[in-house]
Amino acid sequence: MPRGVVRVLGIDPGLTRCGVGIVDVSPDRTARLVDVIVLRSAPDLAIEKRLARIADGIEAILEEHRPQAVALERVFARSDVSTIMGTAQISGVAMLLAARRALPVALHTPSEVKAAITGYGRADKKQVGAMVARILGLDDVPKPADAADALALAICHAWRSGGATSPDGDDAGLTPAQKAWRAAERASTVSGAARRLKR
Amino acid sequence: MPRGVVRVLGIDPGLTRCGVGIVDVSPDRTARLVDVIVLRSAPDLAIEKRLARIADGIEAILEEHRPQAVALERVFARSDVSTIMGTAQISGVAMLLAARRALPVALHTPSEVKAAITGYGRADKKQVGAMVARILGLDDVPKPADAADALALAICHAWRSGGATSPDGDDAGLTPAQKAWRAAERASTVSGAARRLKR
Repeated sequence: MPRGVVRVLGIDPGLTRCGVGIVDVSPDRTARLVDVIVLRSAPDLAIEKRLARIADGIEAILEEHRPQAVALERVFARSDVSTIMGTAQISGVAMLLAARRALPVALHTPSEVKAAITGYGRADKKQVGAMVARILGLDDVPKPADAADALALAICHAWRSGGATSPDGDDAGLTPAQKAWRAAERASTVSGAARRLKR
Repeated sequence: MPRGVVRVLGIDPGLTRCGVGIVDVSPDRTARLVDVIVLRSAPDLAIEKRLARIADGIEAILEEHRPQAVALERVFARSDVSTIMGTAQISGVAMLLAARRALPVALHTPSEVKAAITGYGRADKKQVGAMVARILGLDDVPKPADAADALALAICHAWRSGGATSPDGDDAGLTPAQKAWRAAERASTVSGAARRLKR
């Protein structure tokens, strides 16, 4: 990989569909698609077998692409009750696999991802997908939404973590929305939100 | 191990304290304490490191004691919001570790465990702890509660799964509460509840 490029694995955790996307992000914030896949497990399998199946898929990706960081969606207990437990279990498994490879793990909320990618924290899935395609120079929006979400997480992480630009770096090359986001991000540092994201 | 004895690992999942208990249960339903430990992770560690720490502890126990089945508390999304995510993440990790050793995993709800151990689904922690000590012939109640809960889960699983007595076996040696529970359990089979527990 060229010097300064950071390779991030983004995971949109789920038991039925788990989006996994890998991007290379340069210091000038340009991002390149490395791979994207949606891992699935059959709902009629025992839960531990479903977890193992998704875990095997994540491990194969880690092995093949050797990312330097893993970004996961931060799951809230207040989310959709019917899927929350499987989502939390997969996120636990993904974090364990990352920790065992000594990879740093970062959690980003859906609104942080939307804001980083589209400049608007309440953007819908379609807007996020369109921006992901544009950022990565793809002809089509990655499908299903889990794939686009995983890539959005990876890009968001690279952009926000200082892996691509330092927190105090200049804003050259940013869109107006991105500049506004970064300004807001700096302003919010004292609230602790930014610190939590950068452990 | 003597013929017919089943060794069960019970896990009361948690990120700060994870109870892990191993029991050997004979066909006559007598149970023997093999080991019990409460795994801990420091709250100031990164979440992925906490998960890895607990996972290492569970793996060491699996390696040392080679249980034939793993019983976990079934976590509900409606439980205490402040701890639910860590609990779900640990349970995902524990199930993965079991699946990778091809061990069967069973989930039991707190009220199922209480009913199996004390004969009363709404028993309090103190009653469960006292019955666990009595069943295992211990002079003292295992402390903290996570340790007693993990042992209760393991005993409950052996008793309910037919590992110790066949589902159609006689009720010799059962307390009146246990007999009532088993009768109710059989009656509920058509509802699917028992089937879910015995996947």
